[in-house]
Amino acid sequence: MKKLILLLWALIALTAEVSAQQALWGVPQVISPEINPDNTVTFRLKAPDVSQAFVTGDFLDWGKAPMTKTDDGMWQLTTDTLPAELYLYNYIVDGLSIADPSNVFTIRDVCTVFNYFIVPGNATELYNVCDVPHGTMRQIWYDSPSLGMKRRLNIYTPPGYEAGDNRYPVLYLLHGMGGDETAWAALGRAAQIFDNLIADGRMKPMIVVMPNGNASQEAAPGETHFGLVQPTVALPHTMDGAFEEAFPDIITFVDNTFRTVPDKAHRAIAGLSMGGFHSCHTSRLYPDKFDYVGLFSAAISPRDKSHTKIYDDIEGGLKRQFDQKPALYWIAIGDKDFLYEENRNFRALLDKGGYPYEYVESGGGHCWPNWRNYLTAFVQRLFK
Amino acid sequence: MKKLILLLWALIALTAEVSAQQALWGVPQVISPEINPDNTVTFRLKAPDVSQAFVTGDFLDWGKAPMTKTDDGMWQLTTDTLPAELYLYNYIVDGLSIADPSNVFTIRDVCTVFNYFIVPGNATELYNVCDVPHGTMRQIWYDSPSLGMKRRLNIYTPPGYEAGDNRYPVLYLLHGMGGDETAWAALGRAAQIFDNLIADGRMKPMIVVMPNGNASQEAAPGETHFGLVQPTVALPHTMDGAFEEAFPDIITFVDNTFRTVPDKAHRAIAGLSMGGFHSCHTSRLYPDKFDYVGLFSAAISPRDKSHTKIYDDIEGGLKRQFDQKPALYWIAIGDKDFLYEENRNFRALLDKGGYPYEYVESGGGHCWPNWRNYLTAFVQRLFK
Repeated sequence: MKKLILLLWALIALTAEVSAQQALWGVPQVISPEINPDNTVTFRLKAPDVSQAFVTGDFLDWGKAPMTKTDDGMWQLTTDTLPAELYLYNYIVDGLSIADPSNVFTIRDVCTVFNYFIVPGNATELYNVCDVPHGTMRQIWYDSPSLGMKRRLNIYTPPGYEAGDNRYPVLYLLHGMGGDETAWAALGRAAQIFDNLIADGRMKPMIVVMPNGNASQEAAPGETHFGLVQPTVALPHTMDGAFEEAFPDIITFVDNTFRTVPDKAHRAIAGLSMGGFHSCHTSRLYPDKFDYVGLFSAAISPRDKSHTKIYDDIEGGLKRQFDQKPALYWIAIGDKDFLYEENRNFRALLDKGGYPYEYVESGGGHCWPNWRNYLTAFVQRLFK
Repeated sequence: MKKLILLLWALIALTAEVSAQQALWGVPQVISPEINPDNTVTFRLKAPDVSQAFVTGDFLDWGKAPMTKTDDGMWQLTTDTLPAELYLYNYIVDGLSIADPSNVFTIRDVCTVFNYFIVPGNATELYNVCDVPHGTMRQIWYDSPSLGMKRRLNIYTPPGYEAGDNRYPVLYLLHGMGGDETAWAALGRAAQIFDNLIADGRMKPMIVVMPNGNASQEAAPGETHFGLVQPTVALPHTMDGAFEEAFPDIITFVDNTFRTVPDKAHRAIAGLSMGGFHSCHTSRLYPDKFDYVGLFSAAISPRDKSHTKIYDDIEGGLKRQFDQKPALYWIAIGDKDFLYEENRNFRALLDKGGYPYEYVESGGGHCWPNWRNYLTAFVQRLFK
């Protein structure tokens, strides 16, 4: 009966007035990607009229793997068995890089929209929405007098926040260059990781604040008064000290708005790449604010000292910070990361000062699989 | 200096280890779409090796307009002047329907990912992020004992909610078939419309609750324990009464969790298409709950009575509802909507009972431009 009615609706919709109706009944004809039981993955693309089609993705180190055309115009490729991970990919069709038209699951990473899929296994169990209590994700605006604008934050509050009256510690979690306040939620699977770790008792319930580290922007691309301006990496004021100087605006807002424990012992800051840079220098600039610092594939050396003097005395700043004995200073980087040397030099500087830190060296490079792993490891160390 | 450093980073990243790094420096080479000063729109696609390229979109009534190839392999099309509106489009390249690779702004509408752009003018000023106080959008989970699952809501709280202690009226705002709790925020520009109308004093500050109307689902596709399952329209239990019967779970959660005014005079329900159907029957089923009802291009007649008896006595239910004199019963539909006749029949039924309602007949069909307009008109009538 139901099917009949749906069919009837579809027929009505496909008659004369279809042009004025929403495209409700466009059901995808092609299954792609298909995660096979042996964790190989099959990609498909129905495109009889194109002459070349490739898959590219992080599981191919962004190389191109040719798809094979079958008689009915279906292009297809099946990978080898892939390790459990969240993967990004695109197609290249007659020289044109496109999203997989059969996969609605997309993530914008900086300037490019990629499709994604998850190969199941131990490493990705934390990335799933499981039957556990869920925290709340908010897009909320705060006033930043230092930057002269309203700016947007993504904030995770743990399960039970709304129903209870507990106060919680706070992790400030920062994105990389070209990213924005949505990056950790989308590419980082942050809400899923937090929900699952908290349910397991492996992570203390905490508030996680994900600000926008681009000090010239109010929010993510498309979410500002600039309108639908395409994103770019080359934003002004990303690494010139403006963000670190304005950071107290965020802390003030968060402590005034949420049930935080507003002291150093209950405050952490961490970030990836440029966000690691911001974490390093913000925590150094305000040595009485953060007891936990996480640098994930962090940039360390100042790129631009034009705006402020905050990079003028890094060694003095580190001394002031470590004089206050942070509970955990945690550095992680992959052995193929282009910032590896920069991190080695920074560790030498810490060693020279006799400053204690923990160091995790993983495989791999400057990429999200590492950052999700670092986040997972780091949050389990906080506020314990 | 900054440029030099960025260049240096780029060079480092493009050497031996590029494959292990995030694709940070992929800057789009092509501007598309470009909204010209005369509100014509130019689409571009760099694809030297394809032999046919078309633009399709709602501004073309989903017909195909051929793009023209220039010598350097750039395909291009400039439209006529377009009225101010938010438009959806895709390309069709060698028979393949794809997103515009140069435009990261995409919206999933049911089963398809479309690009979008906004042509400026009076009608779309409300769709912009303006320099006004902003409300907060939350993705929050509630327990639905009636449906036996945790389910996700999108909730808008008005500017000032966090800082104050006022109580607010509540609008429950429902999506259509194939949609989910994210539809009104993404396709409906709901947060922008609310922020701008509230700033203008045209809309009372209110809480807006956007539930998921698919009673078999916890949340939007990809946000459930099913994992990354591609969306489909043909979900079970969408219009069989399960959602309406379980609606009190949502009200209970919202009234327990947010500072609402928990009475009929401060509660509204509205929705588009299937969401209009849900609004019609939920408000009828609980006649003491909603003082304001909005049916936007609503389905009215039951499609499936298999699950419950709630559709057995519609006339009796309407009598019970109108005996309690709702403050506003508001019906809007386009004169080309495929549900036009169904709405005419329903108005005849209301007329027969002598039940007061307001009726707005617009041009156009079953589509988001109408639904955004209806929302804008309806919310200005609430709680006044």
